Amino acid sequence: MKILVINPNTTTSMTEKIGIAAKAVARPDTEIVATNSQDGPASIQGYLDVANCIPGLLAEVSRHQDVDAIVIACFDDTGVDAVRSLVNVPVLGIGEAAYHAATMIANKFSVITTLSRSVPGLEHNLMRYGLAQKCARVRATDIPVLKLEEGDPATMFKIKSEIRDSIEQDNTEAIVLGCAGMADLMAQLSEEFGLPVIDGVAAGVTFAEALVNNRLGTSKIGAYSRH
Amino acid sequence: MKILVINPNTTTSMTEKIGIAAKAVARPDTEIVATNSQDGPASIQGYLDVANCIPGLLAEVSRHQDVDAIVIACFDDTGVDAVRSLVNVPVLGIGEAAYHAATMIANKFSVITTLSRSVPGLEHNLMRYGLAQKCARVRATDIPVLKLEEGDPATMFKIKSEIRDSIEQDNTEAIVLGCAGMADLMAQLSEEFGLPVIDGVAAGVTFAEALVNNRLGTSKIGAYSRH
Amino acid sequence: MKILVINPNTTTSMTEKIGIAAKAVARPDTEIVATNSQDGPASIQGYLDVANCIPGLLAEVSRHQDVDAIVIACFDDTGVDAVRSLVNVPVLGIGEAAYHAATMIANKFSVITTLSRSVPGLEHNLMRYGLAQKCARVRATDIPVLKLEEGDPATMFKIKSEIRDSIEQDNTEAIVLGCAGMADLMAQLSEEFGLPVIDGVAAGVTFAEALVNNRLGTSKIGAYSRH
Amino acid sequence: MKILVINPNTTTSMTEKIGIAAKAVARPDTEIVATNSQDGPASIQGYLDVANCIPGLLAEVSRHQDVDAIVIACFDDTGVDAVRSLVNVPVLGIGEAAYHAATMIANKFSVITTLSRSVPGLEHNLMRYGLAQKCARVRATDIPVLKLEEGDPATMFKIKSEIRDSIEQDNTEAIVLGCAGMADLMAQLSEEFGLPVIDGVAAGVTFAEALVNNRLGTSKIGAYSRH
Amino acid sequence: MKILVINPNTTTSMTEKIGIAAKAVARPDTEIVATNSQDGPASIQGYLDVANCIPGLLAEVSRHQDVDAIVIACFDDTGVDAVRSLVNVPVLGIGEAAYHAATMIANKFSVITTLSRSVPGLEHNLMRYGLAQKCARVRATDIPVLKLEEGDPATMFKIKSEIRDSIEQDNTEAIVLGCAGMADLMAQLSEEFGLPVIDGVAAGVTFAEALVNNRLGTSKIGAYSRH
Amino acid sequence: MKILVINPNTTTSMTEKIGIAAKAVARPDTEIVATNSQDGPASIQGYLDVANCIPGLLAEVSRHQDVDAIVIACFDDTGVDAVRSLVNVPVLGIGEAAYHAATMIANKFSVITTLSRSVPGLEHNLMRYGLAQKCARVRATDIPVLKLEEGDPATMFKIKSEIRDSIEQDNTEAIVLGCAGMADLMAQLSEEFGLPVIDGVAAGVTFAEALVNNRLGTSKIGAYSRH
Repeated sequence: MKILVINPNTTTSMTEKIGIAAKAVARPDTEIVATNSQDGPASIQGYLDVANCIPGLLAEVSRHQDVDAIVIACFDDTGVDAVRSLVNVPVLGIGEAAYHAATMIANKFSVITTLSRSVPGLEHNLMRYGLAQKCARVRATDIPVLKLEEGDPATMFKIKSEIRDSIEQDNTEAIVLGCAGMADLMAQLSEEFGLPVIDGVAAGVTFAEALVNNRLGTSKIGAYSRH
Repeated sequence: MKILVINPNTTTSMTEKIGIAAKAVARPDTEIVATNSQDGPASIQGYLDVANCIPGLLAEVSRHQDVDAIVIACFDDTGVDAVRSLVNVPVLGIGEAAYHAATMIANKFSVITTLSRSVPGLEHNLMRYGLAQKCARVRATDIPVLKLEEGDPATMFKIKSEIRDSIEQDNTEAIVLGCAGMADLMAQLSEEFGLPVIDGVAAGVTFAEALVNNRLGTSKIGAYSRH
Repeated sequence: MKILVINPNTTTSMTEKIGIAAKAVARPDTEIVATNSQDGPASIQGYLDVANCIPGLLAEVSRHQDVDAIVIACFDDTGVDAVRSLVNVPVLGIGEAAYHAATMIANKFSVITTLSRSVPGLEHNLMRYGLAQKCARVRATDIPVLKLEEGDPATMFKIKSEIRDSIEQDNTEAIVLGCAGMADLMAQLSEEFGLPVIDGVAAGVTFAEALVNNRLGTSKIGAYSRH
Repeated sequence: MKILVINPNTTTSMTEKIGIAAKAVARPDTEIVATNSQDGPASIQGYLDVANCIPGLLAEVSRHQDVDAIVIACFDDTGVDAVRSLVNVPVLGIGEAAYHAATMIANKFSVITTLSRSVPGLEHNLMRYGLAQKCARVRATDIPVLKLEEGDPATMFKIKSEIRDSIEQDNTEAIVLGCAGMADLMAQLSEEFGLPVIDGVAAGVTFAEALVNNRLGTSKIGAYSRH
Repeated sequence: MKILVINPNTTTSMTEKIGIAAKAVARPDTEIVATNSQDGPASIQGYLDVANCIPGLLAEVSRHQDVDAIVIACFDDTGVDAVRSLVNVPVLGIGEAAYHAATMIANKFSVITTLSRSVPGLEHNLMRYGLAQKCARVRATDIPVLKLEEGDPATMFKIKSEIRDSIEQDNTEAIVLGCAGMADLMAQLSEEFGLPVIDGVAAGVTFAEALVNNRLGTSKIGAYSRH
Repeated sequence: MKILVINPNTTTSMTEKIGIAAKAVARPDTEIVATNSQDGPASIQGYLDVANCIPGLLAEVSRHQDVDAIVIACFDDTGVDAVRSLVNVPVLGIGEAAYHAATMIANKFSVITTLSRSVPGLEHNLMRYGLAQKCARVRATDIPVLKLEEGDPATMFKIKSEIRDSIEQDNTEAIVLGCAGMADLMAQLSEEFGLPVIDGVAAGVTFAEALVNNRLGTSKIGAYSRH
């Protein structure tokens, strides 16, 4: 099976990290095609970036016709509805995938994301998916997405501090890492804090495999129909 | 990987059917252990059966210590919380798994279940999972669970008639088959009606594989903790 | 009229305390039968105990056929749906009864319960009853149920401290005591803090009397029907 | 114990019927004082009557200082918040009481009321109490309140027809009679249709007895405080 | 166009302030008739005042027959439903108007009101309008309404302190001033805190102008019908 | 004051109709600039069009720097969040504006839109705005947007038939016309059916005037901030 994992921003170092995270969980016989938009914002933070990355994302989808499933590797789940309207195969946003995974292993979860400006969009997605009631809180580190790429120790310190606060103040039972750029931190943080830490890229790829094995595609009646 | 699929009623013909459905979607290297409770009701229909099957279910779980994930193959998701409190591995109910799968490929779904008496319990689960807003309607065929085992053509006729009504009246975009005993009908109905038809056993097994591959287990902080 | 008050754990000292609380509010011509399960957990804390006490509870119900109403004296409202499916008379959980009473005398209430592990189950019940929006917060003292039986002054100190915090931080207008083992504290705490303090056993018994006097029994159409 | 049952309209034949319904369920040692406003609308149908009956209702409350509880016998629960702010004893609206009773004996209920114009107010109350999710539907007979007093057979026919439709179309499990003027129909309809039929006056009086026996009064912290 | 702006309390200094705020935003060709109830409470704080001001409000409405729209200048939106049932023209409460304005320019808002006792009524309105999810928090200054008229510097200090806390603690994006007596503070506070500060009188008058220019009146089918 | 009304599709006949509707309600001293995207879909129906029209919409906004408010004349409220992030002035979608107007004059409204495929997006917006509970139903005529431009009598017949059904079946109290292409039908339908009929273009322009006169702009803290 072939899964297209699209980073809808143009930062190739993030695409590489996403590709590694995807391959780490995919089955041996799954081919991961990790790619990114050719045009658009370098990172997606807030409603304007969410809108501006759409054309590049749709163009990138159109370049890959023979895939079995598509994972959109932006935690805002940008363009998921549009891509679902374009194709027959399953399409998953990594935010959506991470939230669903969290509800399967914990009663309540918190999200640790980047800028405060991104929080309302994530809360809105959670409400729309019906999963807001399972989310204790969406927390911002106020670390810009691209800063995550630099490997600054202060970055890790801030993420850990938010996880600690979330366990103590939100009574959270699991942590969702709210940015594709955090995909490499999952195992380490889970061990350190003794609770499940969920990365959306990993969740998205494995759920996409699951849907393909169920022979399920995007419904073409109603919201995602062609006519 | 080894996945325990427990039918919490004592009807072995259902367990066989469940085992076949599970193996049909599992990866080649996944071992499916399909089993059922040794004591308890022959079918689970309504709140009394839901309660009565718990001791047998917990006993059966305890007999299988070395598994990587557990799927509870009863559409009411009976005992999922209790089993999660008992083990460290991921635990999925087939109702829960089917609902989550449905929201990943359609904007709205309907459930076709057996007796009217079971509808409130399913509606209650949907509300608790946050997914009630994605469910157009839970429809009862008023066919008892064990009747499904008999292969009566009238049974199939009734199920199809409810699917047809659901498409026309509920504007549904996908169908969830609301009983483990319907696990063999998925492919046929999907083709006939031209929309995704989701079986909880298949969804549960593949999502369990996904969670194991994410190295995620049940959170032991909070609701499912030991202390 | 004869009301069966069942403690679904096996700790007889709690059953005695429950019986005293029940008799203190019942009318002179109401016969209170206070009893407990013969088998099952010694206390009910978390989802596993909630499930494990069901067989003993159902067995105890079956031993008492000629009662006019049943009160299930566990704050988790364990088994209420199952018992309703078994009998024609009204069945009330003490959690449910306390929440309803609280909404009749206050705009908002808080719950003081035992272990943190029990909080999610109570929150889930409140959501299902529709009363979550009236509950400011469910607070855990982290005192185990059986510790309440020992009369340790530190126990009372912790309960009072949570009530004080609830008034100051949650803007609560009434307190619900979230454990059958707190049934003897109602009057004292209400006087000390100057706000209504509600005990579920007392609420359950008097509401059961009310329903019997309305000649209302459990509906046998739909969720609690026999067929 | 002395319970004040106030009909907030000025139609004394309704007050008499309400008094009879109240006494039929009250305990022998409960004194029922059934009275009505001296000024205001002859019946309460829609938002304008709801507002106009308030001064007469508050004046009538002030004339009865030594009561143990107050029941406001208008199904719209007019003035309940204001009266709670005025007194220390428990105050119950008959709509509120009936809804709470319904949720204790059935999973879902429907309301049969008088004019369509009254439906939005009742739906709004149900939402505010948190009980909208338990109400299958509020149905209007479009019989004016005062018409109920005339004993016209067509009136009874219309009420029965709505109950029948509610069982068939709403999957309802219990019926709430949505007008104080229907208080005499409870027993007859319950027997005829084989499901619980709830009258708010009876529910209100018996729940008021219950609250008094719990020694619970209206909270004087927060919403109903004096300062 | 002629807009009736009614202060439903009897404090004429508030009416004057309200009139000035209304005229400051109205178009040149809009005639503002600012008036108040002739009888009733001097200020509206809590459910009892809310009820007691209704007769005076309805009487005042009846004295002004030839207006194009009505604004009820009490932040509790007292009597809005009753007045809508009485007239054909648009009727707006200033609470309602301010909340709607806030959602048009910000993702989330907080309300700063007077007494704690008024908070539940405002929360209830927000829930009923559907806008509770957009309101971060309703904050009380515990300054009585009439104290606002005295121009005490401590009053302004307290309001500013709540705004500051709201920005820091609630992540609010806009402030709604929750009392007609705060109508003169809008511009000053908006500039000082660098976020939109909304006054209900101004919002109510300009939205009333908008509805009149849309040729929209209160619907006379359903909730606000005459029959 | 100058209001930019942008049609985010490229059909200039719709832009003309929108401009006429805008000017018909604007005050004499308001300048209406009616324009449309230079690139993008010819009509907006479903999630794919909603996404594809964004670049053209943002480009068009950037061409008009000196406006006092922006109205986005697409009933899906496409790009409203992105445009709010781009500018300081108030930004209103015509769907949003129409829903808010409807709740100010009626207890419940229905929406009549074009294709079934557009219904989920509108329902999702209503949920996000908090106004889903005020919307009786979103009805599709299954007339494509561009067909509305042709003046076919069958089109008008279908719209009227849906309004009639909505009054009878949904108990609606007001109608919202769910497409900018219906802007010219408002007055005629309102008169014929005797209930308020709301057009989003008119509502959007007059509410934009109101916000400008309140001196309110889009909040630059939080969701729509620049940083």
